[in-house]
Amino acid sequence: MESGVDCTFGIPGDFALPLYAAQEAAGLRTIVCTHEPSAAFAADAYARIRGLGVVMTTYGAGALNMVNPIAAAYAEHSPVLVISGAPALEARKAGFVLHHTVKDFDGQRRIYAEITAATAALNDPATALTELDRVLDTILREQRPGYVEIPRDLTDAPAAPSMYSPGPAGAATDAAAIAEAAAEIAELLARARRCVLFTGIGIARRRLETETIHLAERWGLPVVSSVLGKSVFPESHPNYVGVFVGTVGDDAPRLAFDEADLILAVGVLDTDVNAGFRTYPPPRSKLIALDDTRVRVLHHHYERAPLGDMVRALLARAPASPRPFWTPSPSTPESPTPGPSPESHVTMEGVIASLRTLDSSRYTLVADIGDAWFTALETRAERYLALGFYATMGFAVPGALGAAVADPDRRPLVLVGDGAFQMTGAEIATMAGIGAPATIVVLDNANYKMLEVFDRSRPYYELRPWDYVGYAGALGVPGEMVETRRALETALARAERVNGPYLIHVRLDPHDHAPITRRLRAGTERSASGGSA
Amino acid sequence: MESGVDCTFGIPGDFALPLYAAQEAAGLRTIVCTHEPSAAFAADAYARIRGLGVVMTTYGAGALNMVNPIAAAYAEHSPVLVISGAPALEARKAGFVLHHTVKDFDGQRRIYAEITAATAALNDPATALTELDRVLDTILREQRPGYVEIPRDLTDAPAAPSMYSPGPAGAATDAAAIAEAAAEIAELLARARRCVLFTGIGIARRRLETETIHLAERWGLPVVSSVLGKSVFPESHPNYVGVFVGTVGDDAPRLAFDEADLILAVGVLDTDVNAGFRTYPPPRSKLIALDDTRVRVLHHHYERAPLGDMVRALLARAPASPRPFWTPSPSTPESPTPGPSPESHVTMEGVIASLRTLDSSRYTLVADIGDAWFTALETRAERYLALGFYATMGFAVPGALGAAVADPDRRPLVLVGDGAFQMTGAEIATMAGIGAPATIVVLDNANYKMLEVFDRSRPYYELRPWDYVGYAGALGVPGEMVETRRALETALARAERVNGPYLIHVRLDPHDHAPITRRLRAGTERSASGGSA
Repeated sequence: MESGVDCTFGIPGDFALPLYAAQEAAGLRTIVCTHEPSAAFAADAYARIRGLGVVMTTYGAGALNMVNPIAAAYAEHSPVLVISGAPALEARKAGFVLHHTVKDFDGQRRIYAEITAATAALNDPATALTELDRVLDTILREQRPGYVEIPRDLTDAPAAPSMYSPGPAGAATDAAAIAEAAAEIAELLARARRCVLFTGIGIARRRLETETIHLAERWGLPVVSSVLGKSVFPESHPNYVGVFVGTVGDDAPRLAFDEADLILAVGVLDTDVNAGFRTYPPPRSKLIALDDTRVRVLHHHYERAPLGDMVRALLARAPASPRPFWTPSPSTPESPTPGPSPESHVTMEGVIASLRTLDSSRYTLVADIGDAWFTALETRAERYLALGFYATMGFAVPGALGAAVADPDRRPLVLVGDGAFQMTGAEIATMAGIGAPATIVVLDNANYKMLEVFDRSRPYYELRPWDYVGYAGALGVPGEMVETRRALETALARAERVNGPYLIHVRLDPHDHAPITRRLRAGTERSASGGSA
Repeated sequence: MESGVDCTFGIPGDFALPLYAAQEAAGLRTIVCTHEPSAAFAADAYARIRGLGVVMTTYGAGALNMVNPIAAAYAEHSPVLVISGAPALEARKAGFVLHHTVKDFDGQRRIYAEITAATAALNDPATALTELDRVLDTILREQRPGYVEIPRDLTDAPAAPSMYSPGPAGAATDAAAIAEAAAEIAELLARARRCVLFTGIGIARRRLETETIHLAERWGLPVVSSVLGKSVFPESHPNYVGVFVGTVGDDAPRLAFDEADLILAVGVLDTDVNAGFRTYPPPRSKLIALDDTRVRVLHHHYERAPLGDMVRALLARAPASPRPFWTPSPSTPESPTPGPSPESHVTMEGVIASLRTLDSSRYTLVADIGDAWFTALETRAERYLALGFYATMGFAVPGALGAAVADPDRRPLVLVGDGAFQMTGAEIATMAGIGAPATIVVLDNANYKMLEVFDRSRPYYELRPWDYVGYAGALGVPGEMVETRRALETALARAERVNGPYLIHVRLDPHDHAPITRRLRAGTERSASGGSA
């Protein structure tokens, strides 16, 4: 593929077999997963790193088994192409109801229309390539998933050349609006004494990482990351303050917001998660937000002012010599409690302390949702993947597979709770099969523990205790169980020397919580006792 | 619940927590599965036995992760109620984009509208119970899944009484059409010298098992089962001939069709699968088909003539003294090849021979798709569950969980291939957790072997070999690996004495195929070499 995609993820099934055969003939790599949800998660992770990921599947039983991960990719702006086989057009005329079908032959496409930016049923060789180009262009332009289906009797049909034209390049932009917005914002920046740069995932999606660093340096801005934008701005950069998690995270980012007279948000999604789980929405009275296609300045906004154009326009207006950097107040020194000693039973604080000892430049940090995610938010990372907004469980292990294939030079470091591991942990077998490296840290508290943030502990949060090391062994993956911080650090070092996946089962106290979980839970209990949820 | 449902399957998630708390307060049993697709499969199996199954889930990440199994329930006419939590109405007004959401708050319901018979968003306490009754009534009437969602801030809201009225009972029936059709068919039956009764899944869905037995006995009809109707008519009954699998199955059912001058199909779905995988569609020139809501007689049909009314009308017209039973030709004696000796390496034929030694009245046979299913089709069963039409993989293990809960007196006997087991096999842990009995036979040929029916062997059909016994052990489930027929029979006997689940890993030759698979594959190769697929 011209896009640089060198593999697809999926599971072969009857309606997709001609697609798989065509792929084999084209020399594209086929990565067969154990279950369709995992294949789509792997393609999502690959897309986040490479700029496009492809998942290839059979009709019905296959494609309808990845609605959740593709919905997640839509919500999180990940450019994934779903290619589904479909029943042969000839067979549709035969009068039988065909297996793998539900109501009618367009139903699957309609379902995908609810969770993608563009869909096409490539049922006509005269328009198939034009339609395919339209879907691909929409995926790349909107940075969201798209869907095509191909009847099994048309996979090898000669297709007419694409007539697709993406339309005039300027249609989505308004040069006058961009210029006026940039002038106004530059003026506000110049007048501000304490402006904070608030970074979001849009920077990564539009490949604006370098420009954003220059923006921070030239205007002298401290940088606070949104939850969903974690690691988009280098966490080792001197301007970097931390991840903003409202009143439940580290307090330096919140102090920076409090002290700021202006907040410049770049590509930050306006979600409950980025507002510190609704504990602390950034105040509109000092907020400038460069969104994906528009700009909000305090209480007015500019349309057709795309993120990339705006960032470049602001850079063009930056001071010739960098402005001095203003320094927000540091974190209130916490009394960190990483366990009384490295030999005592490991706590979530101890896990965080251990992870902080690693050289983050060598890893892609991949976190599943729940306590594992809250642990990741307190761990430094140069590359980090998580479905923090859509917040579905089960991403991390298959996501690590996609990340290992997309960037073999960085070992995926997976943080996953026991609940999420029980959903999609089997993908360690796929990693072992292709020799993909990964360190998989299973944080086992035998509970869907994070639900205590929302409601008190309940018997049905309890999870079956699995022997995760035995499980890994049965799938051909080595590993070990640890109960102390010292053992965890030894295991992390050992894992690095293993060529494929290595599993570390961290047995935690069932009552232990990640620090952010604990603070969120305390907040829930306060509001419950105060009567307003 | 009035319906006799005594449990729900699902996974608790934040938007569903008030539903779970309400269920706990109501004393309804909560069965927490490891992954949402499995929860929905378990509810489907429970529904097939009990007449209604319920799956309860959170919004987005939960509900969208069971689109495939609910689509399967729709295609296969299984009455499953999906209850999804949803974001609080109050929170929707707050202006944040909420986690777990995709495009808009009605999108999930629209997706479910594509795969269910009725949907409702219970957003208004004034109409909530009326809407719920409408969905429930539709589920039971159409024997298909339905969907409701409940905002988390309304779960405990006082609701107005239901105003639902199912409409006049006669609206869907035409008494004159029923009478005329019954008279015509009774006349044809009386004249026929060799009529065959062809039984379908509709008999089970409409609870017409007893009436169908009487129909066969009173009219003296040999009974051929459709693939999807397997076990609906008792396989130990003297009138029973076998399952019709076109030219690729046992030939007695096909000979019966050939010799018949009339075929009376009762509740047989008109699908490619029931037509012997399109190898042998029953000829219209001698076919009477009582479908779910209408009747086809040769080349004309009657509308608004529901299955139950028609079966009862035909029974009413049956001869006072049973007609003599005519005997179709027996199967051509196959030279069965269950392996040269019980001590040699077990073959698929050997597996079938071993399963035939079991007392089928003590089991619910649960088959996954692929070679496992083709093996099940050649095994006698008094109760049998499989997604043979929609043909998705991964049903059998979670289906056995649902079957064990719905009917604890029959031990589920699971036939599952290695590919399907790798998708949802983790549900054995849930069985172990609640002590649900099951014998799980993993047919391991290290390959998505059935795909060779559609295309030649390919490198990407190969599956990672797992140590399935080690896997089971890690999840707290005992088991053993067998390689000979004698060892398999010993293991099957041992499994019966275990109170919870027991796993038997049958290691097959990677080139072995179930007999039906082998015949289908030979057919594909013949048509490929003959030039027409």
